[in-house]
Amino acid sequence: MDAPLRILIVGGMACGPKAAARARRCDPRARITIIEQGTTVSEGSCGLPYFIGGQVANENALLIRTPRYFKDIMDVDVLTGTRAVSINRSAHTVDVLDLKTNATSALPYDRLVLATGATPAVPGALRGRDLKGVFTLTKLADAKAIVSEIGHASPKRAVVVGAGLIGLEAAEALRQRGLEVTVVEALDRVLPSLLDPEMAAYAEKELATNGVALWLGQRIVAILGDSDGHARKVATEKSEMEADLVVLALGARPNVQLARDAGLLIGAAGGISVNERMQTSDPCIYAGGDCVENVHRVTGAKILAPMGSTANKHGRVIGTNATGGNDTFPGVLGTAVVKVFDLNVARVGLSEGEARAAGHRTAISLAPGFDRASYYPGAQMITVKLVADAFSGRVLGGQIAGKGEVARRADVLVSAISLGASVDDVADLDLAYSPPFNGPMDVLHHAANVIRNKMSGRAKAVSPVEVNRRLCSGEEFILLDVRSQAEWDEAHIDASQCQLLPLNKLREKVASLPRDAKIVTMCKTSVRAYLAQRLLEGEGFTNVCFMDGSMTAWPYAVVCNAQEHS
Amino acid sequence: MDAPLRILIVGGMACGPKAAARARRCDPRARITIIEQGTTVSEGSCGLPYFIGGQVANENALLIRTPRYFKDIMDVDVLTGTRAVSINRSAHTVDVLDLKTNATSALPYDRLVLATGATPAVPGALRGRDLKGVFTLTKLADAKAIVSEIGHASPKRAVVVGAGLIGLEAAEALRQRGLEVTVVEALDRVLPSLLDPEMAAYAEKELATNGVALWLGQRIVAILGDSDGHARKVATEKSEMEADLVVLALGARPNVQLARDAGLLIGAAGGISVNERMQTSDPCIYAGGDCVENVHRVTGAKILAPMGSTANKHGRVIGTNATGGNDTFPGVLGTAVVKVFDLNVARVGLSEGEARAAGHRTAISLAPGFDRASYYPGAQMITVKLVADAFSGRVLGGQIAGKGEVARRADVLVSAISLGASVDDVADLDLAYSPPFNGPMDVLHHAANVIRNKMSGRAKAVSPVEVNRRLCSGEEFILLDVRSQAEWDEAHIDASQCQLLPLNKLREKVASLPRDAKIVTMCKTSVRAYLAQRLLEGEGFTNVCFMDGSMTAWPYAVVCNAQEHS
Repeated sequence: MDAPLRILIVGGMACGPKAAARARRCDPRARITIIEQGTTVSEGSCGLPYFIGGQVANENALLIRTPRYFKDIMDVDVLTGTRAVSINRSAHTVDVLDLKTNATSALPYDRLVLATGATPAVPGALRGRDLKGVFTLTKLADAKAIVSEIGHASPKRAVVVGAGLIGLEAAEALRQRGLEVTVVEALDRVLPSLLDPEMAAYAEKELATNGVALWLGQRIVAILGDSDGHARKVATEKSEMEADLVVLALGARPNVQLARDAGLLIGAAGGISVNERMQTSDPCIYAGGDCVENVHRVTGAKILAPMGSTANKHGRVIGTNATGGNDTFPGVLGTAVVKVFDLNVARVGLSEGEARAAGHRTAISLAPGFDRASYYPGAQMITVKLVADAFSGRVLGGQIAGKGEVARRADVLVSAISLGASVDDVADLDLAYSPPFNGPMDVLHHAANVIRNKMSGRAKAVSPVEVNRRLCSGEEFILLDVRSQAEWDEAHIDASQCQLLPLNKLREKVASLPRDAKIVTMCKTSVRAYLAQRLLEGEGFTNVCFMDGSMTAWPYAVVCNAQEHS
Repeated sequence: MDAPLRILIVGGMACGPKAAARARRCDPRARITIIEQGTTVSEGSCGLPYFIGGQVANENALLIRTPRYFKDIMDVDVLTGTRAVSINRSAHTVDVLDLKTNATSALPYDRLVLATGATPAVPGALRGRDLKGVFTLTKLADAKAIVSEIGHASPKRAVVVGAGLIGLEAAEALRQRGLEVTVVEALDRVLPSLLDPEMAAYAEKELATNGVALWLGQRIVAILGDSDGHARKVATEKSEMEADLVVLALGARPNVQLARDAGLLIGAAGGISVNERMQTSDPCIYAGGDCVENVHRVTGAKILAPMGSTANKHGRVIGTNATGGNDTFPGVLGTAVVKVFDLNVARVGLSEGEARAAGHRTAISLAPGFDRASYYPGAQMITVKLVADAFSGRVLGGQIAGKGEVARRADVLVSAISLGASVDDVADLDLAYSPPFNGPMDVLHHAANVIRNKMSGRAKAVSPVEVNRRLCSGEEFILLDVRSQAEWDEAHIDASQCQLLPLNKLREKVASLPRDAKIVTMCKTSVRAYLAQRLLEGEGFTNVCFMDGSMTAWPYAVVCNAQEHS
């Protein structure tokens, strides 16, 4: 019998343990070792905001697996408190340092797995980064420190720096702990790398509703401390505010030093470069998780995609291949979903901005609709923004926001986009229907049909952003609101160009409209607005379009104000 | 200008109104008329059980559109109380009868749309079908009559005949009204045309938990009445029981008489035969909704698929094509989702039984898992049964049951199967992940990976049904439960072949197991059982497999009893 295969895994968080478990199932005889510089393995790190917020009461719930479990159940050795210092590729060994004893040793491998993760990005130039009361949030220890700080120092004002996924989750968690919370974001919107502006606006409204202040378009320059060395203020380029608890949520940088020092290829996006089999430039060394680059399945570009879900898929592929099998990982779609208080927000594939940057002429829809039968208790309006290539109809991406069921629509699009679906394909999907779960036409059907209508030339639309630009620049056109008087009275866009003409009066009053006028129709969800466009065209009007998404997707205050996202 | 196109639509429920609305948007000048023999149009008929159950309090919520809406907004004429009597295809007219005045007239058409729906199937031989207190449930009038009966006659014992979708929804609704409820089903399980037996067992348990009695494998032969002509008993071939309210939910038959009389082609499945453009054998006549046959997208077979979701898609295609456009409908996947009290059940594509009947050698998985992060509040276990072709790995179908999020997984499979996905494709999907919505590996990923493991020969499994057969036939083998002592104490399969050997003791005690023994491993979800299979194989055991789904998918009482689905 051959000597057992020696598999050495550096990193015990997500990809590493998964690779170990898979390798064990593929090769019951292999000698598998995980080295981890921390004291724990398999942390449920995505759950940290919910530990801070209190939804997850017991920290042990976030320790998904223990070293003991790996030993007893998996026959996998876990060396915690052990740091990989360097790789000797010719000798097939890794020099490791025992952080408790400072002893060094060389661990041999036949196959090496690098699952070294990522480190929170904190600008080196940021003054005050080391003050007490300043935290990052990627480890259970971070979350425990924040909870402890809240318990002992009774902070009142928190500032979260960065409005990405972790930033918004942290903001919600701190609000739930009773703190005043401000989120500072250098770009002009929340979730800037995930959402187009009008979709980000839903999250911005929800944050505001829940008492989170947003400082957008402001870059943090310093954290100022008191004489005890504790954070007391945060300063941006423009302003400063009091802050006795600061969470830095500025993304993460892949930990590639070990790989780089060993001469392994590092990609342009900053992660370890791997092939489809998750092999590095050394075929005996695999890498996965937050430290590697991924292929974006729509653009083919190499990107960083630090997600626990991706790390687990990497781990499985590595476990298979490291034990002599053959599996591949095709890449990611940049999928994300996040709960922002009572709002759910998801995105998949390319945003409109990303699709344009990738060279696509885009066709989009902004389709609001109920998440289940409109008459079923609890039905909520959600909005789907679908992005397709305007020539081929290929679906490129989607964004969904609302208080109802959002993740389902995202995952349907994940499946569709991964398999190369067109908007026709999405419109034809025999999605599950009964009133507690859906309407007879899913909002994805509507979203796909709107793009089909645009591609066929029937539907002509402009975006809320463009309508707002025209309103505020004083352009001459009619913004024709075809809702009922009651709906108008409840809320309407307060601009001189806007006028009410309910759809059921449209044909009778059509003579009152100048036939050569530039008209943008609007309603609540754009269904009636589209019909109005078609009816006016039937009456000989030639310059009519409707506003995508209409009132439900209008990201501005109803009172015209170009700057303010209310 | 040409004369406006005359579009005549027979049937005002789902497909008809949708075809009218789409036709209007495609052709603002067309003259569109809907004739409907009832007094209402656009009923939300899928919501009827929730009207009976009380979740939908106001019947108007189920009248999605009114004739007035069609006239005022859509410029569509709706003639209610009007029955289409015959079609004169050469004259392009439909003879109609005004049910109020008995006047007849001939309505002309350029394009005719048949959306005549379906009628509840009630066996002609069923005695007592016309007694008071006996209902079907397809129209709002039916639901109102049932609610009225409950209010005035105070029935105590209800019998629902038929355990399909409407039968189970009706049973729940009647329980919520406080009635004792028994469901009688001729076949051996609930939802027999939708689910394989071990998946139907989840729904059976939920019904039992909520006090619904199940009489399976019993065919109703008569309803017996009292001297007032009111139902009092239901008799099956084997037994009888008291019943003062009876709901017949035995499916529906497509209404094809009008089409058949006009010489249009009727298919072998009993519906009007249409092509991909939803044209009947007369190209000027379209048909859609419950009265037509659909193509099953996996088998290519013509089937009946009476769903409101499908009817709406039909209507859109018809509206496009009847106004000179060109659209096609590719068919259905037999998707269904149903709420059974607190349980959600969905299915898509082919069941294992259907896949085998269609000639596939099947590879299946029974994969239980949490619907969101295991530590996130409200996380629920759901079970996915995935069915694939064992040679190609193509996904053929899926069934999902559990108290958690089920519809999402069904819809992901809808998307995947429609686009020809393999289990590899499903395993690679970059599904949305954050703790409130999912674990890092979706249960669909697990389900796909189990099949991949089986196809690669690594995983060897038997179904719970087969294990039960072996247990009850007294076959000699070891059913090795590798859970903990505590889990065993909570519940275990009480059979002489079953023994406990916790996984963390497996290697140390492996010598106690005869190496030539036939071993079936099991645990809670089959994850540890699969690992145990692999570890035993590593120790030289050659006749080991695990039980698919293990305890979570075990459809029987834990005390061995071949007949009883507890």
